[in-house]
Order: sequence, then C-alpha cells, then structure tokens
Amino acid sequence: MKRIITLLTDFGIKDPYVAQMKGVILSINAEAQIIDISHEVSKHNIHEAAFILLSTYSKFPKRSIHVVVVDPGVGTRRRAIVVETRRYLFVGPDNGVLSLAVDDDGVVRAYEIKNPLFLRSHISSTFHGRDIFAPVAAYLSLGIPPEYVGPEIDFRMIKRIAEPKAFIINDKTFRACVIYIDNFGNVITNIKADMIPRGVRNITIKFKDKELTIPFKRAYNDVPKGEILSLVDSFNYLEVAVNQGNAAKRLGLTVGDSIVIELS
Amino acid sequence: MKRIITLLTDFGIKDPYVAQMKGVILSINAEAQIIDISHEVSKHNIHEAAFILLSTYSKFPKRSIHVVVVDPGVGTRRRAIVVETRRYLFVGPDNGVLSLAVDDDGVVRAYEIKNPLFLRSHISSTFHGRDIFAPVAAYLSLGIPPEYVGPEIDFRMIKRIAEPKAFIINDKTFRACVIYIDNFGNVITNIKADMIPRGVRNITIKFKDKELTIPFKRAYNDVPKGEILSLVDSFNYLEVAVNQGNAAKRLGLTVGDSIVIELS
Amino acid sequence: MKRIITLLTDFGIKDPYVAQMKGVILSINAEAQIIDISHEVSKHNIHEAAFILLSTYSKFPKRSIHVVVVDPGVGTRRRAIVVETRRYLFVGPDNGVLSLAVDDDGVVRAYEIKNPLFLRSHISSTFHGRDIFAPVAAYLSLGIPPEYVGPEIDFRMIKRIAEPKAFIINDKTFRACVIYIDNFGNVITNIKADMIPRGVRNITIKFKDKELTIPFKRAYNDVPKGEILSLVDSFNYLEVAVNQGNAAKRLGLTVGDSIVIELS
Repeated sequence: MKRIITLLTDFGIKDPYVAQMKGVILSINAEAQIIDISHEVSKHNIHEAAFILLSTYSKFPKRSIHVVVVDPGVGTRRRAIVVETRRYLFVGPDNGVLSLAVDDDGVVRAYEIKNPLFLRSHISSTFHGRDIFAPVAAYLSLGIPPEYVGPEIDFRMIKRIAEPKAFIINDKTFRACVIYIDNFGNVITNIKADMIPRGVRNITIKFKDKELTIPFKRAYNDVPKGEILSLVDSFNYLEVAVNQGNAAKRLGLTVGDSIVIELS
Repeated sequence: MKRIITLLTDFGIKDPYVAQMKGVILSINAEAQIIDISHEVSKHNIHEAAFILLSTYSKFPKRSIHVVVVDPGVGTRRRAIVVETRRYLFVGPDNGVLSLAVDDDGVVRAYEIKNPLFLRSHISSTFHGRDIFAPVAAYLSLGIPPEYVGPEIDFRMIKRIAEPKAFIINDKTFRACVIYIDNFGNVITNIKADMIPRGVRNITIKFKDKELTIPFKRAYNDVPKGEILSLVDSFNYLEVAVNQGNAAKRLGLTVGDSIVIELS
Repeated sequence: MKRIITLLTDFGIKDPYVAQMKGVILSINAEAQIIDISHEVSKHNIHEAAFILLSTYSKFPKRSIHVVVVDPGVGTRRRAIVVETRRYLFVGPDNGVLSLAVDDDGVVRAYEIKNPLFLRSHISSTFHGRDIFAPVAAYLSLGIPPEYVGPEIDFRMIKRIAEPKAFIINDKTFRACVIYIDNFGNVITNIKADMIPRGVRNITIKFKDKELTIPFKRAYNDVPKGEILSLVDSFNYLEVAVNQGNAAKRLGLTVGDSIVIELS
C-alpha cells in the first residue's frame, strides 16, 4: 500500500541509524514511500525539531505519516505515542517534539504504543526509532488503524512545549526572540507576518547592547549584495538576513536570543 | 504518473526547505519519483551548480525533469523558466544555472513560468523553489505540456554563463583553469580528455609561482598511496589527484585558479 | 520490476557521484527503489564501511541488492564481484568491504563481474560505482541471474578483512578495542552483549594510562545529563556513552584504540 512516511531525526547521515529505520519500514511495507525531512536536527534539540516539523508537515499529502525521533529519554518511562490529527498521523516520543505540529493541525485522538505485535521482536533500550517508531509507522502505512497500537490516551495530556510568542509592547514595538537560524545564516524571529502592518519601511532591532536600523524589503536581492535587511520569509515570520551573506554571524545572534523590534 | 524529478539546490540538508519542496511535489503527483542530485552546492554559486548539472543530467532516463534552485535573485525580476531540450525538461531561475546543460542537450523550446494555475496559491518572495519550481515540476511530471506554464520565450535569450575553455598554446601546452574540486580534494581542470594525445607520460603543472611535474596515469592506485598524479577522470577531464589523499590541499589550488599544463 | 537497491559509499553528498549512480540505475530499471545507507564513510575506509554494512544489511527485505563503493583500488586489478548470500545480493569491489556482511548472512555463490553487456559502454578507470556496480545492480534488480555477470569464483577466495574479536582474559576481563564511534560520540566496543553476564553493575575501562569505573545501565537517561555510562547499544555491543554528551571527545578515544574492560 502506497503511503508516505516522513522521517525527522537528530541521527546525522553518516551512521547507519536512518538506513536501519528505512530497512525496517520497507520490510513491513515495501510500498511505503519514505521521505527525509532532516536528520541534522541539533542533537537532542526537541524545540528545533518541533519547529522544523511545524513548518513542514502540512506540505505533504493528507494521510502522510510523520515520524520524529529526537529522543533523549529513549529507554526511560517517556511514552511512545501515535497522534491522529485532522489530516495526518504522527509517531514519536511523548516529549513535546510533536506538539507544535499536532496542535497546529488539530488533534483528533492519541494513543500510547503498547502492542508488541507492531514492534520489532527485540527492542533495544537505545534505539526506539528502529525498534518501535519505524515498525509502527510501517504498519500504519499498511492501513492498520491507530487504535490497534495501544490504548487511547487523553490528548490533553500529551507533553507540550511552549512556542515562544512575541510580546506586543505597542503596535510598533515587540519583545521577541530568535527561533531559528537556517544554514544560510538567516535569522528567523517569532514575529509573524500578520503582526506587521502595511507601509513599514524599516525596522530597528535591539539586542544585547546593540541597536541597528535596517530596511524592511520584499526579497533578499532588494538590497545590494552583502547588505543587511529584514523581510517576511518563507516561514511567514520576520527574518533578518544579509543578501548572499550570513546575518547570524554578522550580528552575533543565536537561537533563543531576546530582541526588541521597532517598526518604522 | 510515474516520472523522475531531480533536485539540485544550495539549501543544505539540515533545514526543512528541501523537504517542503518534496511535500509540495508529492501533494500534486504522489507518483513522482524524486531524486536528489545535491543540496550542498556552495551558497549562491551558479557556476558550480551549472557544472554539477552538466555532468549529471544525461545519466537520468529520458523525460526526467531536472529542477535547479540556486537562486540569489529570488523575488526580483529574473525570470522563472522551463526549458525543453531534446530529451529532458529543466525547471529553474533564468540566471544561467541551467545553461550549460540545456545547451549540451540541445534546446527545443523555452517558456517563462507565468500561469498561476500551476503555482502555489501564496507565493513567497524568498522561496520560489517551493512555491513555483516544485509545483511546476510536479504538474509537468503529470504530463501537463510545458507550453501551459506560460508564454514561449526566445531560447537564444535565456541567460548563459560561460564555460571556461582551455586555451591551446601549442599542441602540448594549455592555459587552463580549475573548474571543480570534489570532496576527495581531486582537482578537476577544464582540459578535456580528447585534448590529450596518446603517449603522454607526465604533465607539468604551473600555477602561482610553483611548477610541478607529475605522472599521467590511468587510475589513482597507479602511484603509491599519498603520491600525486594526473589522470582522465570520470567527468572526462584532466584531473590532478593524490592517491588516497587531498590534492587541492596539498597544492593549495582552488576553483578558478589559472594553471598552465604541459604534456610530455 | 520493483526491487530495493541500497548504496553505501565514501562519496559524500555534495558531489554528483551518488546522483550519477542513481541516474544510471534508473535508466536501466525505472522501478528500482534506491535507498541510501550512507555516503559519509570515512574516505577509503574499508573497515568502517564493512562494519556499517554488517550492522544494516539484514534490516532490509530479502532479495534487496546491497551496493558498496569504497574502492581505493578502482581501476587496478582488484576484482569487481557479485556475492549471492542466503537472502541478499551484494555488489562491490573485492577488497574486503563486503566480507563481514556476506559471511554473516552466509555466502551461496560469488561471481566476478566481466560481462560487458551489463556495464556502461565506456568504463572510466576512476568511477566503477557508476560504470560497473550501478548498472550491474540495476540489471540484477530486473531479475538477471547473477551468473550472467561473469564467471563463478571460489567464494573462499573473496578477500576478507578481520573483524577484531575481543579477547577474554577471564570471565570478567576483556582485552577489546573501539570499533566505531558514531556521530553522537558514542564509543562502540567489540564486546558483544552475550559476553556480559547478568548482574553487572559497573565496568572499569582502562586505556592508555587512564582507568575509569562507570555504571553499566540500560538507557542513556539512566544517568544524569552529562554523566558517563556504559550500556548494551543498538548494535548489540558494549558501548561507552555520555548522556546527551560526547563520550569519544570526553575520553579521547578513537577507532582502533585498545582498551581493557573489567566487569563488576
């Protein structure tokens, strides 16, 4: 049965861990179509993985199965769960990594993975990606109903992580933070596009003891190469960037940094 | 409809950009078979992407659709195009990144992407890979004729980049340059195999203020481990290499460096 | 014909080499399902690739075709081979890289690749992955019997590499070594799980001039974050790790290091 399974992990791409998951999945459902979201999540970084998942899950066809394995608590009592949302199934540890995406899509039901029928016969205490999440996703892709994997759990009790919200000081000033830095060095803030009124021409960004006024533009190339700008990016957030350069390095900003943004 | 779509970008593999493109493609054509050429093109390096595409496009089955997104001008007036060549379709920005490959295969017709029917409903000004090129490629993979995506354009007006040609000083001496360095550190020059007559036993390479005579061999292992050599490589160019070592680091050569090669 | 072909190389993911192999495979069998095991094997490291293959091959469906290209001797006299094992086919150079996996699964027959019918028409002397191994794997995936690729060879004569065995000094003491370090920095030893009796609570590891007693646990998170531990890992070996940290860096251990382990 043809069905998409996406994988998002912090396993890196050198070691055989991702391939072992794929082998397990294909041994159960040779028709599964496996797509990598990323395997380069910063090690054990649940917030980063949650953001990547949130920004990406809805681009896939309905009924895709999203498997996330960023799982520092593997082998301990944290639950392994399947979450059924309006349009998708999610599989992973109950450590908050699924929470932004499942709440965004709307949770329908959640289940704790318990049924050994859908797991590998020997379950390691260090690699549930291969031994639990991969086989469960593969069986789900065959059409096994999620309620077969284990008991339904109260979906309000799934572990949540906070999505840091920008704080509106006044209609032109926000207390915000850096939520992601991509590999181009673009600095993504948590100020959403719809918080920015029409007619803004510049933003002033204050952080640490710095203050900087930069143009607010549509596209990177609207400023000369090497110059700094701000724009609404493809995540639909306010982003600080350097045209063909690395804004994070230029400004010394990292994920989690507090900033104040003034629109003008 | 089963059809191959290849992706070549400078997006890196950590961020969700590539996965977002794949999700968009599969949402339009769940049967598309997506193959990564590379996502590690040096940022904004149109020449490097053009070389990688040139060296790889023809290895894929006829009628494959090659999508290239190395696009520093995203969101500005540079055109988005589809190029139909003798055997393939190419999709990407009109910034020269497609030019070496499409001219190599032979352009049949070219089109500017304009028809909103085949684009995402909201088009960001920073990520046309996801919002324009991915959906267009997906619709093409469904068999939509390329002329549906927008008006035909004069294919002579597509932006070209120059492929640096080696300059023949005499039948044994070339003024050349380094066009690519692979991750083994092999130094690929723009001297084509057919410029090297039979019977060559050594080459002398002159660059900066250095001069070095090295053997011309068939295979890396024809010299002892750690020794330098030259050979015709799998791109069919003259390459300078170190057996199981890194020639670029050893010699201090980088892409674009001018060299003089003498055959002997 | 739908059939899985896995790829394991030291080619890296920037250069077009892997994509060229995929293009060649799909041009022969458009239905082949190509799965990457890893392309980040340390350059020319046959032992590392052999270990990765050993740990992963059996997770894939029966009749999968495993292609390995870690091939410092490319273009020389080392043979190109197909090995038929109990459940799989393996394709690669006869340099030992296949040996741990094929012996683990049990060799049925082995063949030297010779028949030009199943190779690319022009064979480079630097890239047999693309010109020999990829097309042979593709034809095998179409159901071509392995004996068509060339003459059967005595499978006892395939090149083997030694799998370093831990030496038992007494029932609680082993002379062992580090066989792999993963990208988390986990240190994998060659002490197999079944060599560790029940009831072990600590291990003492001696290496270079250091000696360290650390707890033996089930899961990484059984010690506080940042603390060192040992456990049986997902390879089913004794592993030294730091909970959410990098044990190899902490201890200064690298692959090949000799260690003495005492159980207590």
